[in-house]
Amino acid sequence: MNAPKDALLTVDEMALFVDYYQLTMGQADFDAQNDAIITANYYVRQVPQGQYLIAAGLEQVIHYILNLRFTDTALDWLAQRGDLHADYLAALKDFHFDGSIFAAPEGTPVFPNEPIINVTGRSRDVQLCETYLLCVMNFQTLIATKASRIVESARGRPVFDFGARRAHGRDAGILAARASFIGGASGTSLVLAGHYFDIPYVGTMAHKFISERPTELEAFRDYATAFPNNTTLLIDTYDTLEGARNACIVAKEMETRGARLRAVRLDSGDLLKLSKEVRRILDAAGLNYVQIIASHELDEFQIDTLLKKGAPLDSFGVGTRLATGANFNSFTNEGGTSALGGVYKLVESDGRPVGKRSLDEPTKATLPGRKQVYRVTDANGNYVKDCVTLWDEPVSEGQPLLIPIIQDGELVYGFPSLQDIQTSTTAELNKLPDSHKGLTGAKSYLVEVDSVLNEGISCITGMT
Amino acid sequence: MNAPKDALLTVDEMALFVDYYQLTMGQADFDAQNDAIITANYYVRQVPQGQYLIAAGLEQVIHYILNLRFTDTALDWLAQRGDLHADYLAALKDFHFDGSIFAAPEGTPVFPNEPIINVTGRSRDVQLCETYLLCVMNFQTLIATKASRIVESARGRPVFDFGARRAHGRDAGILAARASFIGGASGTSLVLAGHYFDIPYVGTMAHKFISERPTELEAFRDYATAFPNNTTLLIDTYDTLEGARNACIVAKEMETRGARLRAVRLDSGDLLKLSKEVRRILDAAGLNYVQIIASHELDEFQIDTLLKKGAPLDSFGVGTRLATGANFNSFTNEGGTSALGGVYKLVESDGRPVGKRSLDEPTKATLPGRKQVYRVTDANGNYVKDCVTLWDEPVSEGQPLLIPIIQDGELVYGFPSLQDIQTSTTAELNKLPDSHKGLTGAKSYLVEVDSVLNEGISCITGMT
Repeated sequence: MNAPKDALLTVDEMALFVDYYQLTMGQADFDAQNDAIITANYYVRQVPQGQYLIAAGLEQVIHYILNLRFTDTALDWLAQRGDLHADYLAALKDFHFDGSIFAAPEGTPVFPNEPIINVTGRSRDVQLCETYLLCVMNFQTLIATKASRIVESARGRPVFDFGARRAHGRDAGILAARASFIGGASGTSLVLAGHYFDIPYVGTMAHKFISERPTELEAFRDYATAFPNNTTLLIDTYDTLEGARNACIVAKEMETRGARLRAVRLDSGDLLKLSKEVRRILDAAGLNYVQIIASHELDEFQIDTLLKKGAPLDSFGVGTRLATGANFNSFTNEGGTSALGGVYKLVESDGRPVGKRSLDEPTKATLPGRKQVYRVTDANGNYVKDCVTLWDEPVSEGQPLLIPIIQDGELVYGFPSLQDIQTSTTAELNKLPDSHKGLTGAKSYLVEVDSVLNEGISCITGMT
Repeated sequence: MNAPKDALLTVDEMALFVDYYQLTMGQADFDAQNDAIITANYYVRQVPQGQYLIAAGLEQVIHYILNLRFTDTALDWLAQRGDLHADYLAALKDFHFDGSIFAAPEGTPVFPNEPIINVTGRSRDVQLCETYLLCVMNFQTLIATKASRIVESARGRPVFDFGARRAHGRDAGILAARASFIGGASGTSLVLAGHYFDIPYVGTMAHKFISERPTELEAFRDYATAFPNNTTLLIDTYDTLEGARNACIVAKEMETRGARLRAVRLDSGDLLKLSKEVRRILDAAGLNYVQIIASHELDEFQIDTLLKKGAPLDSFGVGTRLATGANFNSFTNEGGTSALGGVYKLVESDGRPVGKRSLDEPTKATLPGRKQVYRVTDANGNYVKDCVTLWDEPVSEGQPLLIPIIQDGELVYGFPSLQDIQTSTTAELNKLPDSHKGLTGAKSYLVEVDSVLNEGISCITGMT
């Protein structure tokens, strides 16, 4: 397997991208000769917005797990710390993941409390993957889900990720573009994401380009000269309607050269009112082919309302609230942390279902046992329900959600292109009944937990 | 200058970490032979929570700007796209930043609408830095600020960053640890951040370690054996009070071996009630030296309330809400996007103050002119007000906030250690009067804008 182009971390660094307790527990497991074969589940207890999630991030996770090694450089550095012992560090030198992973493919709609990834292997090995897996899956799943909501609100109009400048660091900018594309975005403003993932990248102009020239008209002309076939003019630097009239002048000049102005962009103000007035100005000049692009604190709530009220907008650039997975309703300002709280929990050890009872906070209890999910559809292929069962339990209906990715340390899965993932995401979301979608008030989707599993709760060890 | 250890991007990749419009505008500027010398300001219009910000991220930004090159690999890839012309791409090959940068050092408290960084250089060069500068400064400043609030709420008790698993990707995990440390955190759980930045990293144990063993007591014993001098036991896997009693058994066993249990950790449930009961159990067993660490959906609001109510907690592990800069009040659930909306705006071109009027959204207008900030203090060194003036304007009081970092392409600043930055942050925050701090209801700090500057608004070009 080739490294995904966004690997970012060197092989020395990969081994250190762990919460330290992965290593201290590893030491204690090593000392106690704990060689149990365990399974951990990645799943999400609660969806931040709406009722579904779009799984994303698996390719980076699998790359990490297959390539994770403890180099001398990393081990020497850890040895200086003194907390870990030489015998355990020496054993880490031989680490390579030889377990098995089953997972829902990227772009799959998934639901709370059902396993999205099963990692099976030696206890110490399975826990080494936790920090990276959670970090990458939680973020990309958050963003792919947010993107799918925004794309849905745009009703077929293209949505572009403009979020790199407000993303949480460089990797967030890159991965937000990737996950947005999985969730249905048409492209990104971030060139490096275009390069890594072979997805479209786009650019218009900034206010700077205009304000450093003597007049807006001069700026528009300079840009149109440079890009006769791909000019979008930003018209709100001084006065949006005056900007629209200047755009008309330049568009007419372009026509005389056999070129066409592609679009104007609104980036501030009352987008409903301005888009209508700008559309009238453009149409009155015979420029009905010129599109109007909107950006400026957009999200699914804003876009939905603009379009419901008839804003003549043709596409959307969504920045901050997409790339940070903003978890709030921008009309009521109610919300919470912009993060997906996915967890990675031990469910089986040497064939024995295990879990956490969490008497003082029952919502944090885990469902013991290695599990599969069966997705049940109707005759038209539409989703009816998911059934969570024990791994080997015979079932009468549905298709297994978790498919083999790594078996005994070998990659057995071919990662699809992002374009194929996007196509599949769209198709799958179309099979999810509308009642479980929508921006607010969607109904939760039925995830049945098999009775054998529910009884399993009683097998949790360590109870008093 | 050596690369900061978290450089992450290769030199081929650095040039592509731009929003595409930086390059399309560059092309149009190249075609129009725009060789103006400009200044752009980085500043923040609004603080997400509270009234101050802790500036962070400068070292990464400067590393990027000094090392930014367009390699053949990057240029060849851009050439395939077709939108940019060969002459401009050829010119990019010679790019290196030869301008000047003045900035507030990392760890400085800064306030809305005052410049934090001035970048001066050739127009095309200055704009190439925008995406990276905004991405890295916005995120780290958001997190350093959040950390300082959380640290303040902890009233001297150590706060640790536990957020990597919910951070927005790998870089966010790493930079959140860095920025948290600047803001006053005592360390991180992420080993790689410890490695990059030479800051403390810590680890306790996960529920997995306990639930895979036949009994909690057995798990505690295994861990205590491995780390006789540094054991923290997680006691909420099944029943917290039973866990506390098991911890007492192990602590007493450790005592017979001349060792001491360091701490127990609570990670769920009613932390106020549980911490009091656990403290009683520990004390009754003569274990008053055993500390209690809390984690579990903490932030400054939760910690403040716990301590006001007398929770006997000794330190805090803060994850999701620290590493994502959660911008909401966890009691009222009111908030907004977890991002800092810092902007990078043209303010001067060839000595002429320029700006953006933004008639349709006056809050997005810019204050024209290259600016300096003077921080005025009283006889005790406490902050009185900041004065924003034109760059060369004579002033009668205060110390300049923006100091030289790069002059004519040469680094003229020695980056302090993170430990020194943290010390300075703490000292500076102590000089900010309490009325501007506090978790809610803080008063805004006075940032005076010089009258010459205010008059400058009329010089914005392009007005009708």
